[in-house]
Amino acid sequence: MSESNAPTPRTRVVREAQRGIYDRDAAYKILDEGFICHVGFVMEEQPYVIPTGYARHGNELLLHGSSASRMLRTLRGSVDVCVTVTLVDGLVLARSAFHHSVNYRSVMILGKARVVSDPAEKMDALRCFTNHVVPGRWEEVRQPTEAELKQTEVLALPIEEASAKVRKGPPLDDEEDMELPVWAGVVPLRPVAGDPVEAGDRPPETPGFDLRRLTRFR
Amino acid sequence: MSESNAPTPRTRVVREAQRGIYDRDAAYKILDEGFICHVGFVMEEQPYVIPTGYARHGNELLLHGSSASRMLRTLRGSVDVCVTVTLVDGLVLARSAFHHSVNYRSVMILGKARVVSDPAEKMDALRCFTNHVVPGRWEEVRQPTEAELKQTEVLALPIEEASAKVRKGPPLDDEEDMELPVWAGVVPLRPVAGDPVEAGDRPPETPGFDLRRLTRFR
Repeated sequence: MSESNAPTPRTRVVREAQRGIYDRDAAYKILDEGFICHVGFVMEEQPYVIPTGYARHGNELLLHGSSASRMLRTLRGSVDVCVTVTLVDGLVLARSAFHHSVNYRSVMILGKARVVSDPAEKMDALRCFTNHVVPGRWEEVRQPTEAELKQTEVLALPIEEASAKVRKGPPLDDEEDMELPVWAGVVPLRPVAGDPVEAGDRPPETPGFDLRRLTRFR
Repeated sequence: MSESNAPTPRTRVVREAQRGIYDRDAAYKILDEGFICHVGFVMEEQPYVIPTGYARHGNELLLHGSSASRMLRTLRGSVDVCVTVTLVDGLVLARSAFHHSVNYRSVMILGKARVVSDPAEKMDALRCFTNHVVPGRWEEVRQPTEAELKQTEVLALPIEEASAKVRKGPPLDDEEDMELPVWAGVVPLRPVAGDPVEAGDRPPETPGFDLRRLTRFR
């Protein structure tokens, strides 16, 4: 994906082509708002789709997990992967069943991941994961020991062959349905954080958790 | 997946095996709460992961889309597919970076989809999609014309080779980290519906949209 965003035959949005977006900043914005992706890979001709956390670091999408996981062991073999991030923004309720839809923003990235093995780069990647979800969290918790680093595998997927797809706005009803006696419109959806549930005690003077740190869940 | 749920080598949860769940009712419950899945399939050796709506009908997962879509055209060729549904329940904030996690419930289904071509069965599937998201919606909107039915492809994937994976509960901190001066616990997350945005006018006496119908977003 260049700055001026030429789609490849594999990432070009075929259906509803007006929903396709190929510029880098639009994809980054969606990736930075999400934090769970679905990773697709093939093992013995069977596709698998696994949900997992991620972070973006420059022009790479970082994945991590146990060195023992089936997914990580497969991906480190430089196989073709597809990572998709989807944000659901609303239910689109039309006057006909046919025109019902969902407002969403999604990014699909194709490519091969590389193993991040340099210890400093790996540590920096882990910082990205932690701070992607809760800004500043890395700096307040205990950082990984050497043994923990070894148990963790980090992969980096270039955000090059990628496309975003977006549906927004009201339902697109047929003209002849406009008089039907039914409510039509959009019900916005968003993820919201509830009251934090503390685990165990904390030493005196240790502050509680301020939900305002979770900017994407307010 | 039998009632008594033997995992296959392909669906057995390998890592964190205690998170694996193989009973049918647990999988159904997760599928019934979600409404967006990620469909994985292979085209020319490249895996693709596409987000789309779904509904469950008995022991089948129903997918639909335009007959012209690349995904639907591929899947109707009886290829291997993986459909994954993920519900994100909370952020798990531990005292060390290493033990940070996410609470979630997910279901992965492997198999081959069949085309639903019988018109009555197809119409019933479309009713399932509409009412899965908003109960009773099908009965109040205009139902599909013959032309609309033709433009829509419906596929049914048996929920047989499937497994659920669940992480819940507090962070699992190392004993020696318990005295660290940092808040630890779970921040619950859930999708919430905002104020409906009406599109166009409705005839007098037509009721507005009652958000209480969206039982999963309250």
